[in-house]
Formats: sequence, C-alpha cells, structure tokens
Amino acid sequence: MADTQRKLGLWLIGASGNVAATIAVGLAALQRRKHAPVGMLTEQPPLDALPLRPLKDILLGGHEISTRTVAQTAQALATESRIFDHELLKAVAPDLRTFQKNIRTGSALGCGTTITRLASRKMNAGAANARAFINQVRKDLRNFQSRNKLERVVVINVASTEPRSPRRKSHATWAALSKALSQNTSPLPASSLYAIAAIESSMPYVNFTPSLGVDVPAILELAVANNVPVMGADGKTGETLLKTVLAPMCRDRALQIDSWVGHNVLGNGDGEVLDSAANKSAKLETKNGVIASIAGYAPQVRTSIEYVKSLNDWKTAWDHVHFRGFLDTQMTLQFVWQGCDSILAAPLVLDLARLADYHAAGNQGGVMSHLACFFKSPMGTRQHAFGPQMKMLADYAAENLVRENESNPPQHRKAKARRKRRIPR
Amino acid sequence: MADTQRKLGLWLIGASGNVAATIAVGLAALQRRKHAPVGMLTEQPPLDALPLRPLKDILLGGHEISTRTVAQTAQALATESRIFDHELLKAVAPDLRTFQKNIRTGSALGCGTTITRLASRKMNAGAANARAFINQVRKDLRNFQSRNKLERVVVINVASTEPRSPRRKSHATWAALSKALSQNTSPLPASSLYAIAAIESSMPYVNFTPSLGVDVPAILELAVANNVPVMGADGKTGETLLKTVLAPMCRDRALQIDSWVGHNVLGNGDGEVLDSAANKSAKLETKNGVIASIAGYAPQVRTSIEYVKSLNDWKTAWDHVHFRGFLDTQMTLQFVWQGCDSILAAPLVLDLARLADYHAAGNQGGVMSHLACFFKSPMGTRQHAFGPQMKMLADYAAENLVRENESNPPQHRKAKARRKRRIPR
Amino acid sequence: MADTQRKLGLWLIGASGNVAATIAVGLAALQRRKHAPVGMLTEQPPLDALPLRPLKDILLGGHEISTRTVAQTAQALATESRIFDHELLKAVAPDLRTFQKNIRTGSALGCGTTITRLASRKMNAGAANARAFINQVRKDLRNFQSRNKLERVVVINVASTEPRSPRRKSHATWAALSKALSQNTSPLPASSLYAIAAIESSMPYVNFTPSLGVDVPAILELAVANNVPVMGADGKTGETLLKTVLAPMCRDRALQIDSWVGHNVLGNGDGEVLDSAANKSAKLETKNGVIASIAGYAPQVRTSIEYVKSLNDWKTAWDHVHFRGFLDTQMTLQFVWQGCDSILAAPLVLDLARLADYHAAGNQGGVMSHLACFFKSPMGTRQHAFGPQMKMLADYAAENLVRENESNPPQHRKAKARRKRRIPR
Amino acid sequence: MADTQRKLGLWLIGASGNVAATIAVGLAALQRRKHAPVGMLTEQPPLDALPLRPLKDILLGGHEISTRTVAQTAQALATESRIFDHELLKAVAPDLRTFQKNIRTGSALGCGTTITRLASRKMNAGAANARAFINQVRKDLRNFQSRNKLERVVVINVASTEPRSPRRKSHATWAALSKALSQNTSPLPASSLYAIAAIESSMPYVNFTPSLGVDVPAILELAVANNVPVMGADGKTGETLLKTVLAPMCRDRALQIDSWVGHNVLGNGDGEVLDSAANKSAKLETKNGVIASIAGYAPQVRTSIEYVKSLNDWKTAWDHVHFRGFLDTQMTLQFVWQGCDSILAAPLVLDLARLADYHAAGNQGGVMSHLACFFKSPMGTRQHAFGPQMKMLADYAAENLVRENESNPPQHRKAKARRKRRIPR
Repeated sequence: MADTQRKLGLWLIGASGNVAATIAVGLAALQRRKHAPVGMLTEQPPLDALPLRPLKDILLGGHEISTRTVAQTAQALATESRIFDHELLKAVAPDLRTFQKNIRTGSALGCGTTITRLASRKMNAGAANARAFINQVRKDLRNFQSRNKLERVVVINVASTEPRSPRRKSHATWAALSKALSQNTSPLPASSLYAIAAIESSMPYVNFTPSLGVDVPAILELAVANNVPVMGADGKTGETLLKTVLAPMCRDRALQIDSWVGHNVLGNGDGEVLDSAANKSAKLETKNGVIASIAGYAPQVRTSIEYVKSLNDWKTAWDHVHFRGFLDTQMTLQFVWQGCDSILAAPLVLDLARLADYHAAGNQGGVMSHLACFFKSPMGTRQHAFGPQMKMLADYAAENLVRENESNPPQHRKAKARRKRRIPR
Repeated sequence: MADTQRKLGLWLIGASGNVAATIAVGLAALQRRKHAPVGMLTEQPPLDALPLRPLKDILLGGHEISTRTVAQTAQALATESRIFDHELLKAVAPDLRTFQKNIRTGSALGCGTTITRLASRKMNAGAANARAFINQVRKDLRNFQSRNKLERVVVINVASTEPRSPRRKSHATWAALSKALSQNTSPLPASSLYAIAAIESSMPYVNFTPSLGVDVPAILELAVANNVPVMGADGKTGETLLKTVLAPMCRDRALQIDSWVGHNVLGNGDGEVLDSAANKSAKLETKNGVIASIAGYAPQVRTSIEYVKSLNDWKTAWDHVHFRGFLDTQMTLQFVWQGCDSILAAPLVLDLARLADYHAAGNQGGVMSHLACFFKSPMGTRQHAFGPQMKMLADYAAENLVRENESNPPQHRKAKARRKRRIPR
Repeated sequence: MADTQRKLGLWLIGASGNVAATIAVGLAALQRRKHAPVGMLTEQPPLDALPLRPLKDILLGGHEISTRTVAQTAQALATESRIFDHELLKAVAPDLRTFQKNIRTGSALGCGTTITRLASRKMNAGAANARAFINQVRKDLRNFQSRNKLERVVVINVASTEPRSPRRKSHATWAALSKALSQNTSPLPASSLYAIAAIESSMPYVNFTPSLGVDVPAILELAVANNVPVMGADGKTGETLLKTVLAPMCRDRALQIDSWVGHNVLGNGDGEVLDSAANKSAKLETKNGVIASIAGYAPQVRTSIEYVKSLNDWKTAWDHVHFRGFLDTQMTLQFVWQGCDSILAAPLVLDLARLADYHAAGNQGGVMSHLACFFKSPMGTRQHAFGPQMKMLADYAAENLVRENESNPPQHRKAKARRKRRIPR
Repeated sequence: MADTQRKLGLWLIGASGNVAATIAVGLAALQRRKHAPVGMLTEQPPLDALPLRPLKDILLGGHEISTRTVAQTAQALATESRIFDHELLKAVAPDLRTFQKNIRTGSALGCGTTITRLASRKMNAGAANARAFINQVRKDLRNFQSRNKLERVVVINVASTEPRSPRRKSHATWAALSKALSQNTSPLPASSLYAIAAIESSMPYVNFTPSLGVDVPAILELAVANNVPVMGADGKTGETLLKTVLAPMCRDRALQIDSWVGHNVLGNGDGEVLDSAANKSAKLETKNGVIASIAGYAPQVRTSIEYVKSLNDWKTAWDHVHFRGFLDTQMTLQFVWQGCDSILAAPLVLDLARLADYHAAGNQGGVMSHLACFFKSPMGTRQHAFGPQMKMLADYAAENLVRENESNPPQHRKAKARRKRRIPR
C-alpha cells in the first residue's frame, strides 16, 4: 500500500493515438527491461541525478474520442510503420490492457470537422456545456487517482491538432472566463477545457500539441493561483529541432540566411488532420517564427505540410536553406530528416511527465519555462535556440540538486546507482 | 607616419592560393566599402565591442611556391567558380598588385610530391637546411614589417595540406629540435618551419590547415618561452562545423548515433592535393575524431574526400547520419552542404588575424584555446561542440572588455559607433 | 537580298522575360561562336542530319507587356543569377539592341491580376475587343516579316503562366469562336489570341507555357484548315523531365509507386506569378497527371510550387518517391534538381523554332505530336514517357531524311559538314 | 509423377546468403499467395504472355560455404533489416526447411581471404584440384535433379563478390583450359568452376554477381558447343539502374555531363566483403564504365562503396551529377536511393531463372544478350541504356510469342488467364 502511494499517474489526452500507444508500448518495454531508455533525457546526465519518479512507478490512463483501442493502434504501427516487433507487442499486451481499462471517453469540442469525424458517436452526445464537460473530466481524473492510489497525476495532451481558436475577451481573466464556461457555446476548444480540469484538480498540465491548451491568460492566472505547474506548446521533435541548432550556427558564423524552405510529408492520423487547411495553419504558425527569432532579422521562411498516406507514422522533412557568406556569395544547406513521429515524441512525453511531477513535488507551480527545449513554442521564454534551452534545463537541474543536497545530505540518502553508459544498447 | 605605425601585417603562407586570393579580394572590397562584412565574427556582437584593428589598417604579404599571381588566381575564381564579379576584380586590381609586391618565394619542404609538383623551379633549389630556410623566412618577415612600417605581423598558414609527418624524438624539446634543425635532413615539414620563423620573430602564428604547423611540443615550448600567441589547426568551415552542432543535438536528445558517413567532393587545388592518399590521411584524421569526442562513445564514422574537377572551388558534402531512438528504432538524417571553400575560409582568417593581433597587443602569449570555434582540431582544449566553443570566445570577449573598461574608462575612450544591424547587406 | 530571304523570324510572346532574354543572349553567343550549342537537340544526332535553318539565319522579335528591356533583363540575370558573364553581355549588346527594336507592346488580357500588375500602363489601354487585338498582333507580325525580309516567322509563347481559363461553348467550333471574338468580353486569354493571330498569318505557333494557347478545339480546327503547324504545352525542362524517365523505370521494373511528392522552389518572375494560387493551379494540373499516365494506375501524387525570392532564376525541385518492391517492402528514391529555368528552356525554344520552321517548309500543318518530348502536356498524344517520345522524334527525323534523300539525291546536295563530337566545349 | 517432371530446379550459389534467403522466403510467399509478385518482370506485360514455368513449379537448391542456415539468415533479415514480417517467416518455415535439405557444401576457391574467413572448416578441406571440384559440383547438381525429378535445373550465382581474377593464357580456348583445370593450382575462381560444372551438365548458368563466372572465352566456347544458355554479369538493381536511365536523359537533352560521383553505403555481408579493397575493385570496375558508354564521351566518374554496419541489408546511394547546359551553365542533379539489396535482387533472380529455363526449352543456347536489362555488365552487347535494353527484351518476347502461336495455334492452347492489373497489392 505504501508502495502504491508512491505511484505517478500519467493521463494522456488522445489515449489511443499513435503517440500514446507508443508511450504505452515503450513504457512497458522499459519496465520489463526489453529495451534501454534511448531517447529519454531523464535517463542521462544531468537529469538522471535528480530523484525523479522511477519508470516502474508510472501508470497510464487517458481520454480518447475514437473507439479504436490502444492495442489496435499499436498493432497498426507494428504492421504498417514497422516500428514495433510483434514479439514485443505480445510481451506488453497485458500492460496495454491495463491502460485500456483506464481510458475514458473524451470530447472533440472545437477540434474542427476533420477531428470530429474520427470521434465515436457516443462521445458526440457530449456534455451540456463547457463547465459540465470540465466537471466530467475532473471526475474521471479523480477516479483514476483514487482507484489506483496514485500520489499524483500529470495530464499531457497528445491529441490531434485543433484548428487555431479565435481569441476572445473572456480569455483575459479567470473571472470572465469562469462565467463564459457556463454558457451554451464553449469559449474554448477541448484542449483548454482539459487544461482547466487538470488545474482545478491540482494536477500539472503539459500541452505537447500546437492546440491552444493552457496558453490563455485566464487559465495561466488560474494555474498561478492554484500553484499548479503547466507548460507547452508543441513538442519539438524533428524539423524544428534541427532549425533551432542550425539557425544559431548561421547566426554565430555571421552567415546571412536569405531563405529557409521546409517541406514536410507525413502519413499518420496527425498528417490527415493537418491536411485540413484550418488545422494546418495552427501548426505552421508555431513552425515559422523560430528562424526570425533566432536570426534577429526576418528571412523568407516557408513551411509546408502534406499528408502522404504511404508514409504511415514516418515523417520526412526536406529543408532548403539559402544563405550568403563573404562577398555576398550564396550557398546552400539542405537536410532530409526521416523520423518516426511517435518514436521521437514518446520518450519526451515520459520525460515531461517526470519533470512536471518533480516540479510539483517541490511545491513549485506556474509556467515551467525551464522545459523550453522540449517545445516548438515554449511558454514563458523567447529563447528558441536549442543550446541555450538545454542550458536552462541543466541550470534547473543543478540548482535543484544543490537544494536536494542541502535539505537531504548525501550521507542520509539511499545510495543512487549511477548509470555507467550514456546510451546502452 | 604615426598612422602607418598602427598598421597590421597579415602574412599568408600560400599567398596565391584560392583562400589567400579571396582574402585579398575580400579585404579590398571591404576597405573600399563594396560589400558588407558578411561571414566575419569580429564585425558582429560580441566581438565587435573589442577595440580590434580596423580592417582598413590591415596589409597583406606572404610566401608562395607556385609562379601563379594572386590576380591570376582571382581571375580563375571569378570565371570558373563564379564567386567574384569581374567588375569587383577591376576595382580591387591595384590592391592585388600591392599584395603581389609583398609576396616572397616559399618552400615545399616535406609537402609531398603532389604539392612539390606545383612549385616553381627556382623555389626547389631551396635552402641548404631547415635552419637556413627559417632564417630566410625571418628575413622576409622582418623586411615586410620594416618596409611597410607595420606595428605587428601575424602569420597564418593557408597553404595546401602536407602529408602527415612522422613524430620524432627531436620534437620533444626545443633544445633537441634546435639542434636537429641544423642537420641535412629537415626534422619538420615546411608548415612547422614557418611557425618557428614566426615565433622567433615574435609574430603570432595561426595554422588554418591540417598540416603539422605549431603542433609540436618543442615549438609550443618556444612559443610559451617567447610569449607569442599561436593556434590551430584546420579551419572549421563546412561539414565539420555542421557535425559539431548536430552531434551535440543528438547527444542532448539521447538519440544514439549508429553511424555517421560523410562524403566530400571538391574541385580546387586543395582537392587535387588531397586526392593523393598521403595528404588525404592527414585531413581525414582531423575530421573523424570529432563525433566520438562529442558523443562520448564511438559510432562508426567514415569520411571520404574526392577530387571532382568540375566543382572548382565549390565543395559538396553529403552526410548520412543513422541514429536510433526510442525502442531502438533507426532513423536517418542526411544533409547536403554546398559551400565555397574560399568564401567560407577567408573571413575567418581575417577574424583570426585581428584576434591574434589583439591577444598579442595585450601581452598575452601561448595557445589561444579561446579560438577553438574556428578549428576542426583546436589546440589546448578537447571541446569540439560548436556551442560551448562559441561560449569560450564570448567569455574571452567579456573578460577582456571588462579589463579594457577598467584600464581605460569609457569617458576617456573615443566613442565607438556600434553597428545596428547584425548582418547588413 | 537573296540571302535575307532565307532568314527565319522567331517571334517571342514575353519578349523581355528571362527565357526570351536568355534566348537572345544565347543565340547571339552561338552566332558569334562564343559558346558551343550545349543543350540543343537540333545540333546533335539524329536531328542535325536534317537541313534545318542555320542558327545564323534566325532573327528575333516579340511582344512584351512590361517596360523592361531585354538588356535590363539580361543584366539582372547576369548579376543576380550569375548565368551570364558580363564580358559576354558586352559582346552581344548590339544583338540585344536589334532584338529590342523588333519588340512591340503586347496584351495581358485574361492573364490574371498578378501578371497585369507587371504590365505597363500604355499596354493596359488595350484593344477594344479580342478581334481588334488579334488584328493588331497580325499587323505587328506582318511588319516584322516584311521589314526584315523573312522567309517565315514562327511564334512561340514564353510569357508568364495565365490562370486556368474556363472552357466555354464558343470554344467548340471556329464558327462560334469567330463570332465571340468580336464581342466586348474576350472568350479567350491572351495566349490564345496570339495563337489565332499567328495561325491566321500562316505562321507556326508553339506554346512553351501551361497557358491555354492553341489547345482549344476551335483554334485547332483553324490550324488544320489553314495547314499551319502548332504545338504545346508547357516546356518539359526539369522536374517533369525526370519524372518521365524515372516513372517508366519503376513501371518496367514492376516497382509499385505508392506516392510521389514534388516540391519546387523558384525565384524568378515566373515563380512570383505562380505564387498566386490561380496561376499555380494551371501549372500543377499539367504536372500531376504524368505519373498516373505512365504507371497505369494512380499513386498519390502531390506537386507544390513556392516562390523563394533568393533563388532568382534558379529552381530547386525535391522529389520524394515512395515505392514498394518484392514482398511489399517500401523503399525510397529522392532527387534534388538544381537547374536554371531559362538556361534549360532557351535552347529548346530554339530547337522548336527550327523544327516548326522545317515542318512548315515541308508543307505540313496541324498538331506536331512528334515534338511531344519537349512538353509536359504534349498535344496529340498520350505518350508521356521520355524514351518513347524521343523515339517519335527520331522516327520523324528518319522518315523525313529518307524523303529528303529521295527528292534530293545526295550528289546534288551541298555537302553537309557533320559535327564530330556530340557536345563540344 | 507426370507433374513433378514439369518442375524447374533453381540452384543458387551462395544458398544461405541474403539474396538467396529472400528468394526462398519470397518464392514461398508467392506460392502460398501471401503477397502479389511485385518487382517481377515475368509477371507483367509483355513477359507474362510467354508460357513461362509457373512459380508453383520452382524448387530451390544450392551450394553454400558458411554453416549458417537459410532460416537463420531469414530471421536476421527480419529482425535487423525489418524486411520480413515474423508471421510470414512462420508461414514459410517448412519451405525453408525443404530448401535447406537441398543445400550442399560449396567452395571458396579464389574468393579472397575475406570470403574464405566466412567459410566453414569442412568446406576448406576442399577438393584436390579444380577438375575434382567441378566433378563434385556436377554430382551435386545431378543428384538434386534426379532426387527431385526436375525437368531442368538453372544455376544462378548470388554469392559474395570474388576479387578480380587475373586473365591467363589458358582462358583463351577450352582445349587449353581443360588441361589447366587438372593442375594443382586452379586457373579460375570458384564462380567460373561452378559455371563449367553447370554447362557440362547442360544446365543454364547465370551470374548475378560481378565475379568472373562465365565471362571467359574458353567457357563461352564450351557453352556454345554444348548449346547451353549463359548470361551475366552483376545484377542491376539500384544505383546503376538509375544511371542507365538518367545518363540517356542527359544525352538526349544534349546536357553535357561534367562529373558523376556516386557514394554507396551498405551494411550487409556483401558490403563487408566489398570493404576489402580487392573485392571492391571488381565491383567498381563494372559500375564505372556505364556513363561513358552511354554518353559517348568520358566525364569524370567516381564510384565509392563503404561498409556501414548499422544499415544491415539496406543500401543508400548518393549520386551527384554535375552537368552543363546552354551557355556552359553548370547545374546539378542529386539523387538518394534507399533500397534493400535483397528485396531488389530476389525477384529479378526468379525472372532470370524462368527466362533461362524458357530459352533452354526452346533449344536455344549461348549468351542471352536479350537479358541485358538485368545486368550492370551485360554480356554480348554494348547497350547499357535501360530503355533500349527493355526494348531488346520486349522484342525477344514478341518474336517468341509469334513463334509460339505459329507452332501452337491459340485454339489448341490452354486458355491463359491474363492478369488484369499490372501490379496488384
């Protein structure tokens, strides 16, 4: 019993999506020691020095709008995208079933017609209004925690991208928003309602998608008032990650970027949703600002996304960087990134869950800007360059380690076996 | 007269090569305000805050083994590589003639048969032994300084790559080396003899090539004893620059590098020299260690170089990075870098000249490891990651700026017009 | 005088555009023997065996809507795109002036707002209606021919792409169209009005752009009736050329194409015009059908075009071909094409002029489907594969050569010096 | 019994290699209707009109020098290269066992130290001399045929590449060679001894590797004398296939190839063997001549191969084509081919087996130059361009179909169900 009280719940919005299924398969694989934790920052220096929640103590739950099960999603990823071995799927099948039992029906409120089409009929019946939906989510979260005797629950949004929402007056203060939530038309899309439910439940909320989520003044006001950690938006997994190391390189070498064109092709559900112009625009907005912010001037930047079914969960990004050097000579850098979206995202979500858990454990709330390196549009900072972002995270780790050591001198702590190899195979 | 005493001489080994010709055309273009200083670190923050030698006060000279003139090289670069406008060449013709007058015949001692074939006959007659050659170089340098009333001379090696030299016992101490220099067979290749000549003349020496240069214990001993600043080796201009931002990204994201293959094709004289296996091995040695040093483990790294005549002064590097992420899923990053070698190198050489000059002006000598960001194989540090290297340079600038301000309070200094835009066009 | 009667006039619609300027510079360079005819099919076997019009006997004229001169365009191409040497421009300056004298003000009727914005004010005053405009063009053409004593004039459209025009009932027959041309609103865009003017003047017309041009039943009816050779549409210069050799390769090897994504970035005026969605759609329509036509089934094909100013006249196409082989294993082919649009198009336009001239000389009219290999959307054939298209052209050459030899036995013909090397430098 | 007399034996040299294992898995998958025959030319027009041996009537056997079983190789390909589903492997396990029973110990005579190291000890004991080895192979082949009641056996070499063998005087005539075979030192490498054994057994022999095989005047003399069909060398599966469609495109468009650089990285056993310089040179020799042969002049061509372990059975080829067009403007085409070697090769080997079988059935012998499209170095023709090679094959099919129809009028033949779709899924 004492043991279960040390468990962390990770509640995923979009619980049967590709990212969630990969988190489920991967977490189980790590818990069962089938794979080394490649791709996880919290398992290598400097973060592995922090007393983070052990992976074995993390339990999954979530909301989902489609009727597809996690196991079905995992099976499809194995067959079509060839990212899981069928042997592995067999080994983790019991874990997926446990997860499935903790999945509740979510809402596609304000998610656009493309996403709504994916939703099950039952879901669409929906709650009477935004407040009613929030209350339902709070109840789901509370039940998850009590039934599983969890010390804490972290809520992370890994659902499909919503269309860009219009800003409204009621977003300005919690007083105004609070009132608007009870009206017939929701003033916010689902991602933000989940955020409110989490914060009202004193559960940290992280938005791994470009959807609106917690990025509303009124909701931030609530998070600060309740001292709940929040962060977002949009996981930085591939093309943008490269941009945020290559653009600083150009700047530091005084090479002038004339244009930066990125073309992304991807074949998963996310791609299908993004193919709808409305949902795409939200994504591109977070992708385009990065270069100008780093360079300090505004080169021509174009980013395009296309849904190419045959790629399944794989994404290929081609970027063409046209820059000029000495005597205004133009030169070119191109890169092709062939990555698997879910494989790149899943370990980062586990990292974020542990880091948000740790932050809350230290009684710290508000925007976790020290996690900027995980996001395309990090909240609470204008720093987009990846190197300095990593420095922010390392500084955070160092400061907290000092604090840990002061309040809890080494001789009294359990010896912590330090991993020898950075990335074991 | 007082004015000429404030001039800096930049003495280039390989004075009619592509890099030297580009430095000459580019420096003249900047002095004549035909182009903005794109590609120069010393013209943007934070280095532009240091009281560096103004570009207008730099004068060129050098050693050369071929009979080709700088103007001929520049003309060929304009026609074949299309990197200079013929109008510009006309405008700077007088400057190239001035430079040409300051060029003396060099030596290809120990440079391998490929380079020796490029040398003029007169040069090959050569000096009786290494010491005699060093003394000849010292005389050339002294004459250059006195004739042009230069406050200081910086010597930078931009000549073709020599074959890797064997280490000898006499390299261990200056006492031993000093003796060996007077024997019939030179214990060192030309690049090191130039370095000795520079250091004995109290002139800073920088090796922008992978040749041996100053990287000999005995020569470093001499440099420290004489308090002369030295640095090298091998300018980091293209493929390796990218490696040193991309490998840290992989490491920081816990993505395991399985293999890193780089294939370089280039068509200039440097490429022709590198095509000879002996000279190539020296180059590849400096290129291959970087990844393992950054990653902390040793992925399979392969780098190959091929001479492709039609590319002229352009270099294309294709790199294929095979890495694994979560659940050991393999993914791929490829990049294609199409850069012009001389255009990339020239502004960095000007930066190095100014920074070595500044260091010497502050009465500082020895290895300038704060310049690591300029080199593939930086001396005096094991730091290969570009971000931390830039930090070392920024820290150096900040410390020296503090010192400047203390010894020379702002109210007494001439107002320094700060540039507004980072990279003007 | 007899000599001038053997001259051919090449009338270019879009006479100051990049393609036209490159034709002018290039034709002059060839006439002055400054360059070998690289890129011209009519200068190598098997076409060089046909008694085509010598290059020295071709004279340029054309219509243009902007006020920019050919020399200005050529100068900009030299400076910004680095495709001409300034020395060459000096040498051919008189030829450009001669061409300029033969340029008349054109019309942007139905060319869309993006193109119209480029037009000079004088032009926009325009003709009262379509028929009046046609008559004005006919007069311009007639004057060009008589003033220069030309044996024949070929009209080729190299102007910016018009928006896709709606099909109308009046397009069905010449009788109906003829009537509609006199009404207030033009039933056709400018490209088609030029085509009518050419055909009514018994001058061959070739449409090198994706604009409507001659591809209207009523106009084809007129061409056949008047026995005037016509052809189009849209020069196959880069990405599509590659598609039409790579897709047949996949088909012949039974490799199944799952998806084919092409992303084009280009920076010239054409790119700027195509950036407008309306004009872009016309272009993409001709680009997308090719794969399905060759493969015999319909893979997912996506082609996108973006205007990237810094590229000037250079175009980069990135294509990602996802195909499956044995046991349904998916594999990938990517290519990057970095070509200069005008440089690729210009020699083909000269080829087309000579081949249309030759066809007309043989008293042949109608659609010249044997020229399919030059076009993205060839008229009169469904053959898109480049190999078979080349076969059609070779067969045409062989047949005509037989005819030539029969009617004009070798012993009576002037000896034709055969070129030895295919592509001299 | 009558039925088994209609079976074809396919005897693979290198029977446990990746290609052979993929043939085995794939043939079984097709026989069990688990996959459509993607990648096979003989299953689509025009070849599917010929009365070729049905896939269900092909039985596998072979020689192998290592102790690895086919099932082990297949398992490794599934796990490391992710090209087979584990479910599929289970389904075809009985077929692999049947194949395994028909595998005999081969020889690594003259295969170089890298290959010899792979061989089992038992094998290395070896035969007394070349003739003894040939006789042993003949016995193995005879037993395979009689035990399985096969109508015919085709021998195809899919073993690792041997080092380039020196040409000897005894290679000139069968009389001379015949004598040399009985001496202590073998005058030929293993690939040629297998070829002799096959020909002496009246079994068609095809060399799918760059090894010497049948390409020896004396052996060809024997093949003609015995009227046995033979062909080679070196399957054209990837980079070279692309070269032979792209180089003709350049030639047909009069674009001058200045240089063509190809860099291949691959991680399978073949790659490991090729990494040894001696074996590599044999491979590169067949790769480099192609461009010059097609272009009609000799551009700079460089092809390099590197063994990159992490790629397993996948091969990535990067090709950089530097070409010049009008006015000598240089442009660039690059491609990246990411293919799986075994997946590409296996269906072609099945095609070759059926086509050699058909040729022999028609009582035709000697070099099958109509199969040129399958090879990097086709025997009996100088045609390297893929389009014309396909034409040769189509012509062969058409001629034989006419013959079939004449000798065997349609009304008497069994109705042949024609496949509707070219490539079913």
